[in-house]
Formats: sequence, C-alpha cells, structure tokens
Amino acid sequence: MNITIADTVDSGQLRDLCSGADKVIVFTDSNVSPIIPNFLDIEELPVIVTPAREEHKDLAALASLWRALQTNGATRSSILINVGGGMVTDLGGFGAATFRRGIQFINISTTLLGSVDASVGGKTGIDFDGLKNQVGAFAEPLHTFILTAALRTLPDSEMLSGYAEMVKTGYIHSPELAGRMLALRDRLRDSTRLNPLILASLETKKSITDRDPHEKGLRKILNFGHTAGHAFEMLRLRAGRPVPHGIAVAHGMLTAIILSHTCLGLPSKEIYRYADFLKSTFPPLRFTCDDYPQLLAAIASDKKNRAGAPARFTLLRAVGEALPDVPVPNDEITAALDIHRDLTE
Amino acid sequence: MNITIADTVDSGQLRDLCSGADKVIVFTDSNVSPIIPNFLDIEELPVIVTPAREEHKDLAALASLWRALQTNGATRSSILINVGGGMVTDLGGFGAATFRRGIQFINISTTLLGSVDASVGGKTGIDFDGLKNQVGAFAEPLHTFILTAALRTLPDSEMLSGYAEMVKTGYIHSPELAGRMLALRDRLRDSTRLNPLILASLETKKSITDRDPHEKGLRKILNFGHTAGHAFEMLRLRAGRPVPHGIAVAHGMLTAIILSHTCLGLPSKEIYRYADFLKSTFPPLRFTCDDYPQLLAAIASDKKNRAGAPARFTLLRAVGEALPDVPVPNDEITAALDIHRDLTE
Repeated sequence: MNITIADTVDSGQLRDLCSGADKVIVFTDSNVSPIIPNFLDIEELPVIVTPAREEHKDLAALASLWRALQTNGATRSSILINVGGGMVTDLGGFGAATFRRGIQFINISTTLLGSVDASVGGKTGIDFDGLKNQVGAFAEPLHTFILTAALRTLPDSEMLSGYAEMVKTGYIHSPELAGRMLALRDRLRDSTRLNPLILASLETKKSITDRDPHEKGLRKILNFGHTAGHAFEMLRLRAGRPVPHGIAVAHGMLTAIILSHTCLGLPSKEIYRYADFLKSTFPPLRFTCDDYPQLLAAIASDKKNRAGAPARFTLLRAVGEALPDVPVPNDEITAALDIHRDLTE
Repeated sequence: MNITIADTVDSGQLRDLCSGADKVIVFTDSNVSPIIPNFLDIEELPVIVTPAREEHKDLAALASLWRALQTNGATRSSILINVGGGMVTDLGGFGAATFRRGIQFINISTTLLGSVDASVGGKTGIDFDGLKNQVGAFAEPLHTFILTAALRTLPDSEMLSGYAEMVKTGYIHSPELAGRMLALRDRLRDSTRLNPLILASLETKKSITDRDPHEKGLRKILNFGHTAGHAFEMLRLRAGRPVPHGIAVAHGMLTAIILSHTCLGLPSKEIYRYADFLKSTFPPLRFTCDDYPQLLAAIASDKKNRAGAPARFTLLRAVGEALPDVPVPNDEITAALDIHRDLTE
C-alpha cells in the first residue's frame, strides 16, 4: 500500500512524490486550513480552501475546485494534495480525477474515520440532490499519509466514529482481529496500540477492494453494519440531532449481529459480547417503536432494493465470515430492532 | 473493437447488450431526438433530451443529466444509451462515468465527426469556464454503433468536418492509407467506399489509444493538424463566423505539413499534393498577416506550453511517421503561415 502512518509528513518524501509535477496545489477545508502548519510545511504552495462539513461536499464546491485549479495554472502534469477528513479527500479526489480528465493526487488524512474509511479503495465523489456520494469516480491517490499528530487533536466522538469502522473491519476479517479491535477500546489515544491496528484495518480493506474494485459483489461486505447504521444516521439527522457516521454504524452493527444470529445462525454469545462492548464504549442512540416505519423505509431505500423485494443486509455466518446481500423480511428486521432496544436500554 | 457500422441499429443486438441492465435510458439532444425513430426502435424506453450544440456541453447540462438519471430510477446496474454527435457522447459518457461512480453506456453515433473522432479512445467530458473539455473522464462505451443512415442525412459541411479527421488518420498511419483517404473525396456519400475507411480510421486510432490510453505521449500524434487548426477555429469564432471543427483541422494540416517540410525535411511535393487537395475539397479559410498575432497567441495557449518556451506541434518526418511535441519557434510558424496563404489564395 502507498500509505505512510506517521506523526507528521516528511517534507523530503513529499517532495520526492511531487518531483515530476509541474505544479503542486494544496486542497483543504476551512477547519483544517489553520492547523496545517502544525504538521506540514507547505509555505510556498498555493492553497485552495473549501467550506468545511459534509453539507458542502456538493456540486458548487466541486465547480469552485475546478475553477481554482484552472486559475492556479494546473495542467495534466500537476498534483493536488488533499489535506483533511473524508469530506476533503472525497471532494478533492473527485475534482482531481476529472480535471483535464484526471490529474494525480495525494491524500493527507487528518481524521481517524477518513484514515480507515476513505483512504483506501479509491472511492471519491460528492453528494447530489440530497443523496450521499451520488456522483463520483473510482480513483486511487498516488500516496496516502495518515497524520497521527492530527488524530490526537480530535474530540472523542470523532475518534469513536473512526474506531467503529475499525471494529467493523475486525468482524469481517477474523475472530482474532475482531478481538484485537475490541481490546483497543481504552487505548485509542495510544499511537503504539492504535497505529498497527489502523494498518491492519487498511490491509483488510485493501485486500477486499483489490479483488472487487468497482463494488460488483464481494466489496459489499464492507457495508457490514451500514444498512441499519445509515437508517439510524438519517433518523437522528431528521430529528435535528445528527450523530457521527461511525457512531451510527456501531449501533447498526448490533442490529446486523442480531440478524446474523436469527438469519444465519451466528452464536447468540456474539450478540451479548457486542452489546456489552457497544454500551460501554459508544454513546447511546435511543429509538422507539414509533420510529420503526421511518427506519424500515430508510433501510429499504438505503440499499436501493427493487420495490416490494426484501431489504438486503451484509451479515455474518461467523465472525470473519461475512455474506453480502442477504434478503431479510421486514418482520425479521422489526424483531431485531426489538431485541436491539432491549439490549441497549 | 466493440463497434458496429450499419444503416440502422439491430434491435436484437441492442437488447442483448442491455440484457443485464435493470433499466435502460436514452440520452440525446434536441436536434437528434425527433429523428431517432428513423433508425432506432426505443418506443418503451425513457428519453432524456439535452439542448443541442456545443455551447450546452456544460456543467448545467451535466447536472440535469445526473438529476434525470436519478428521477428515472437509474441504479449502478443501469445502462445509458447516448444517441447523437460528439457533443452528446462526450456529455452522456461523462455523466455515465460519474453517476453512482460509473454506470455502463452505449454510444449511437449519428455524425461522421463523432463517429471517427469521439467514438474511440474513451475521452468524455464537458467544457468549463470557456475551456473545451476542461473536465471529464476516460471511460469506454460498452459498444458503439455508427449509423450510416443518419450520416447520409448530414449537410456537406458536416460530412467534410468528419472527413478531415479521417484524412488526418491516414497521414499518421501510412502513405497507403493517406492515399486511400484522399481518393475518397468524391465518394463520401457512397457507403461501400466510406464504411471500410471509417473502420480503418477507427482501427488506426484504437491502436494508438490502446498503447497510450491517458495521453501521456504517443497519443498526441492524433493532434496532427490540430494546433494550427484550433487557432483557425478560434479566429473564426471570434470573428463571428464559426467554422466546423474538421474544416479548421483540414487547414491546420496544411500548416503542419509545411512545418514538417521546414523542420523535419518532409519532401516538398507533399506540401503541393495536400494544398491541391485542400483547395479542391474544403471551403477556403481566409486570413491575413494582421491575424498572425492572434493565431500565434492561440497556438501558444492551445498546447498549454510553458510561458516563453516555443510552441509544440505534431509533425511528420514522412507520411505515416508522426512525431509529437516538436518545438517550433515563432518565426518558423510565421513563415509557414506566409506559405500557407500563398498556396491557398
């Protein structure tokens, strides 16, 4: 993998990577821009700053990026360096992948979620007409830097959001990696413990995306926890109390583990182990049976299922054995949500 | 090559190509839309119509296409069928390449220029902020149909515009193919003569783009005639008398052949042969020495040369031996433009 995990960016390494470029331009957002000098020496480079936050990962921001590349004199031989979280690398990666039909880009990831979720697999894109990542491209960065110095400055909720995706990768990979991920819980701020598991997470993801770069089948197992997770995310967003992506996914994994038991015979002890972990690690995410219709509708639309057909989940036959596209009837989902509430209340 | 050259589209073949798709949607422009029933049975398919003409190959049209794909329920397993000239296949191809990070598309080409220029090589894109094809992607259609029934309905200027690109391909490929392309002059409306040469043109282009899909080097030889050609195109556009792309390229090839003689020793008889062909085939494109500053500026900016460095042309060492990126000082260009005027006045 073209990935470096380190406290700061080695200027010499970055210079070598960019040695063939006729112009090097930095892209970042308004939150990250002020802290860049803490970990990166970019004094002489032009910087394009986009408004922070997911709601600005849109067509207007993309057009502004293209325009700024143009006014900065970028050519097909230029390199764009994206510095920030997943929003910046998604938007900047898509801008680079399409400017002059594609220029090279480097990602410098400053959030744990961005590091484990967005830095491998080549997905780039923007939200469009209210749908997340509706348009985009598959494009691989020339290199990814994961900045552990930046990760240490993140609030707890942001660390947990990325941690949930690491736990997910563990459950997909093997009982051993799942166990190591769960045990990381109290050591998230300890680089000597965190960094090797970030790497293990990325290697797992890469081995899956290499075998299915365009998400035709296998890659869907990376959606473990995301079908219910996206529904929880949407529920909270509509209630005006948005929750970080990974925290919704952490709860979505409990629903998926319950369904893995009822649909595929995953041992019930896995439900209790994960429920205990979830309650002791992540903030609660309350919902009632009044929310079921909204949740079921979100689950049905999330996977773009055909009308009338049952929703499909990625479930576990065993820890380390994920199965994509398992059809689950609505009454099974409802029953799982009941158990979910019982276990977390 | 996944290319079919035929009078109309075989419905059975089209159905087979789309058999794996959950939804098939047609994309075309307002000029082509009314004549589609003449050569294609699409009664039951949804049709997205975009405003015709190059000035609408823009971000607004792209966003409308994405939105229409969404409202028509397109998923990642859907297929878009682009029906029209290069503007429709460039825009539709880019829309398909980016909707949900890429869906498949089929091109049905209805112009000679689109057939020989845009249907091979995977270039898609839109104009942005006044620059042609400023953003886009490399994406190959699942299949291309070249509709000779539609070609026959084109006005002469459109036929000549595509023919110029065919002649260009001949000059790049070999003395033999160049000779066959020149001899086609009086038989452009004769399918039995035209179709095999369309195919030869596409095969030549494909063999070049396969070796250099992302235009790192070799592929630039396809720009033969285009450096001066684009400058002529811009001159006429600014004068309010736009000229079809290929006709400007036909004139640009004369400039390039003169420079090939002065810079690379191409025999002078090639200048006279081509000048005779140009005068007897293409409408004239008058310019005076007052236009030289504008032409030189357009030539310098067209290839995005570094400031101060000489402009670069694709030139011929011999017919069939093209060399990309030959630096040419401005006084050589001026001298070539003088000869160009002498030969065509």
